[in-house]
Amino acid sequence: MPFHGDDVLKSFNELDLIKWIKAHHSKKSRDLILGIGDDCAAVKPARGKIMLVTADTLAEGVHFSRESAPPRALGGKCAAVNLSDIAAMGGQPRYALLSPCFPQGLEFKWIKAFLAGFHETLAQRRCILIGGNVSSAKDWISVTVTVMGQIAEKRIVKRDGAKPGDLIYITGTPGDSALGLDLLLSGRRPLGKTEKYLVSRHLSPTPRVEWGMLIAEKGLASAMIDVSDGLALDLVRLVEASKVGADVSLDTIPLSVPATKMLAGMGQDGGWRRILTGGEDYELLFTVHPKKEARLKKLIGSGKIVASRIGHVNDGAKPKIKFSYSSGRALKISQYGYVHSL
Amino acid sequence: MPFHGDDVLKSFNELDLIKWIKAHHSKKSRDLILGIGDDCAAVKPARGKIMLVTADTLAEGVHFSRESAPPRALGGKCAAVNLSDIAAMGGQPRYALLSPCFPQGLEFKWIKAFLAGFHETLAQRRCILIGGNVSSAKDWISVTVTVMGQIAEKRIVKRDGAKPGDLIYITGTPGDSALGLDLLLSGRRPLGKTEKYLVSRHLSPTPRVEWGMLIAEKGLASAMIDVSDGLALDLVRLVEASKVGADVSLDTIPLSVPATKMLAGMGQDGGWRRILTGGEDYELLFTVHPKKEARLKKLIGSGKIVASRIGHVNDGAKPKIKFSYSSGRALKISQYGYVHSL
Repeated sequence: MPFHGDDVLKSFNELDLIKWIKAHHSKKSRDLILGIGDDCAAVKPARGKIMLVTADTLAEGVHFSRESAPPRALGGKCAAVNLSDIAAMGGQPRYALLSPCFPQGLEFKWIKAFLAGFHETLAQRRCILIGGNVSSAKDWISVTVTVMGQIAEKRIVKRDGAKPGDLIYITGTPGDSALGLDLLLSGRRPLGKTEKYLVSRHLSPTPRVEWGMLIAEKGLASAMIDVSDGLALDLVRLVEASKVGADVSLDTIPLSVPATKMLAGMGQDGGWRRILTGGEDYELLFTVHPKKEARLKKLIGSGKIVASRIGHVNDGAKPKIKFSYSSGRALKISQYGYVHSL
Repeated sequence: MPFHGDDVLKSFNELDLIKWIKAHHSKKSRDLILGIGDDCAAVKPARGKIMLVTADTLAEGVHFSRESAPPRALGGKCAAVNLSDIAAMGGQPRYALLSPCFPQGLEFKWIKAFLAGFHETLAQRRCILIGGNVSSAKDWISVTVTVMGQIAEKRIVKRDGAKPGDLIYITGTPGDSALGLDLLLSGRRPLGKTEKYLVSRHLSPTPRVEWGMLIAEKGLASAMIDVSDGLALDLVRLVEASKVGADVSLDTIPLSVPATKMLAGMGQDGGWRRILTGGEDYELLFTVHPKKEARLKKLIGSGKIVASRIGHVNDGAKPKIKFSYSSGRALKISQYGYVHSL
């Protein structure tokens, strides 16, 4: 059923929590047929649109630690990582289902802050909570979120449309999240303004929903993916799906000022590897036919999208992907992106 | 993205597992626009239909134990509990997203058996896997599944349509699952045929998809819910949503032969409380206008639905819900249904 579950707190049982969520986080929408409160929610895409759907999980001890992730930020991130997947297809987020496992004894204060952050991040993109379920857990928090979005079928931007000669663009400044995570893990305190910026990029990523929608609406991208596991690995995914290759010029990859400062203390190759393989950027990586670049540049010039050209698609002859310095030297990457090894 | 995640095994990383799932469990469907392999899946309901969506979680140590739940049965149950929610609205299941958290060191053999059971249960109802994500977990398995179904909007059967005078029906034989769980927890071994039947009803519940679809298609039910947390609690939910009350005659509630045998050793009141509040039956509880009963009885007579009349809806004057013996004595229930207290 769209919202049910087990107790999560002494004297605050499943039914109470679901009633609380329904009262505080349930919104109506003209298109929504049925929201929280029955066995299923019921939805339909707007006329001429289809539905996109994605599900992603954040697990304590794997994706976050309770000590370093404030509940409000964590709630926002649980929404953001899914909104980012909708953005990567060019879709408009519409509905979310929230399925948290909360361990016994978790404070209601924590849960309320988590839900507030979750709700806030959804609401900013006009996405509404329509269901899910609440479960207890033995020890560790884990949260799975399902998000549904909509788009006109012919506007969907997939991963497999990149063609040799297309230009490669990325939104925002990759690497900030990975450097923020490093700072969190280092335990270095207190943090200055620079460090705080990077940490906030890790804890509270911004899903690029408006940019993704604009790119799809204007038909600008031949392929698109969101960078969740590192620019390098997600670029591999895009070129493999498209059966092409890619040349990337490192000196064209945009870095934030805080990232540039922090990288000054790292070796050049090591610094770039961290930027490219750290993951959790939730930026959009997309390819553009050269004839469409002028239109994209106009949107960038007017501030409607923040994106930079970082390379071009080739025919996929080996090496399939090359990251080069302006000197022509290639950066060697042995481990592409975040793959949690056990 | 619809399928990504972290490593789940040494020398078997996230990408391998996702490729394996895609190769073994990905199916095409005429209506499916985009399945596993991009940031989102893309679907649309058939012409004239809307989409139902539900998400439910099974967590180790809360809903199952790894020792007593064989992986194939567990995989099937993860699908079944969600299919049951679609059935409870009268919907036709279409698509599933699977989001498991697998602890480090879990054997691939276990995962394969789990996936086989999951897939099998979906495939029997022509529901296909279109996405999800694979994550590691610290210690405990938890699995969230999202299922989408479709139905004509005017055929949706909600919880809130029961009217005084309607007749209350339940499919199958409630209580088997709870008694099976008791046997599992008792550690009694070896199990005879009777006990094995009850245990299998707990480990491998049958979602009543075909019955739910038939009930909706023929417009027979004024309200319907699936019995996941016990007949008593789910009846409370139905009558509260409908703003009515219910009288149930205990001697009309159908019990399986194995359940009847097992109850012979329990006190009458205690036995009935276990049947009514044990939960996880995944039967359909529904209400029928008296004028429609003949049509339902015809379907029951021809074996197309297995269901029994157990009471009737009243106007909700106190007591809101009464379970009575044929003598007229009422059964007292202090704790309605499964509410996991911490």
